[in-house]
Amino acid sequence: MAAMDPDQVSRAFVDHYYNTFDANRAGLVSLYQDASMLTFEGQQFQGAPNIANKLNSLPFQQCKHNISTVDCQPSGAHGGMLVFVSGILQLPGEEHPLKFSQMFHLVPTAEGSLFVLNDIFRLNYA
Amino acid sequence: MAAMDPDQVSRAFVDHYYNTFDANRAGLVSLYQDASMLTFEGQQFQGAPNIANKLNSLPFQQCKHNISTVDCQPSGAHGGMLVFVSGILQLPGEEHPLKFSQMFHLVPTAEGSLFVLNDIFRLNYA
Repeated sequence: MAAMDPDQVSRAFVDHYYNTFDANRAGLVSLYQDASMLTFEGQQFQGAPNIANKLNSLPFQQCKHNISTVDCQPSGAHGGMLVFVSGILQLPGEEHPLKFSQMFHLVPTAEGSLFVLNDIFRLNYA
Repeated sequence: MAAMDPDQVSRAFVDHYYNTFDANRAGLVSLYQDASMLTFEGQQFQGAPNIANKLNSLPFQQCKHNISTVDCQPSGAHGGMLVFVSGILQLPGEEHPLKFSQMFHLVPTAEGSLFVLNDIFRLNYA
């Protein structure tokens, strides 16, 4: 991925993340490691197993994320990248879609791929 | 600041940032350095002078930020801290306040205070 444009990398990550969330949520665990942190609506979780457990136990089985904006910047640390997303979360049976914002800090693994070190998610209540 | 709780540090930064923005916007320049990056509604700026110029040339003179949520996580790099904010921006004469989300990556200076390395701002259009 080193030769790719950062905007392309972040957009590819975002597409992969939300497609996985919507189609095979349990598969998200592979994007996190022991050092990973998730703050979900103010609740804090650390480590891939705890994060996956939180995501898999959300009170809805089906959902669809529609992405509105993706912004990225280098984080200044060892090839890390900050990715800032805004979008809409559609739940079955919910008349009104939910707006959300989420940020990721992607950091290279020893093997050269990227994992999610930091993840902060907030719904933007209307 | 090393002895302070990260949540306290991030909350103090957020209060300082938006109070300065609302009362003395030109003073924000001191929070950025040459390496700092701002992405404002998709527009990219680098370096304290360019960032300050953008913030000072926004098409409104008076504004009031009301903060709804502040989340923080260590960024894993040399005492850096990620701060994720959601809130409401009230402009004079605007009937409807604007919702926004913003993330900061705060990094220690050589002198031990914190500066804004990364700043990404988005309005959450209704």
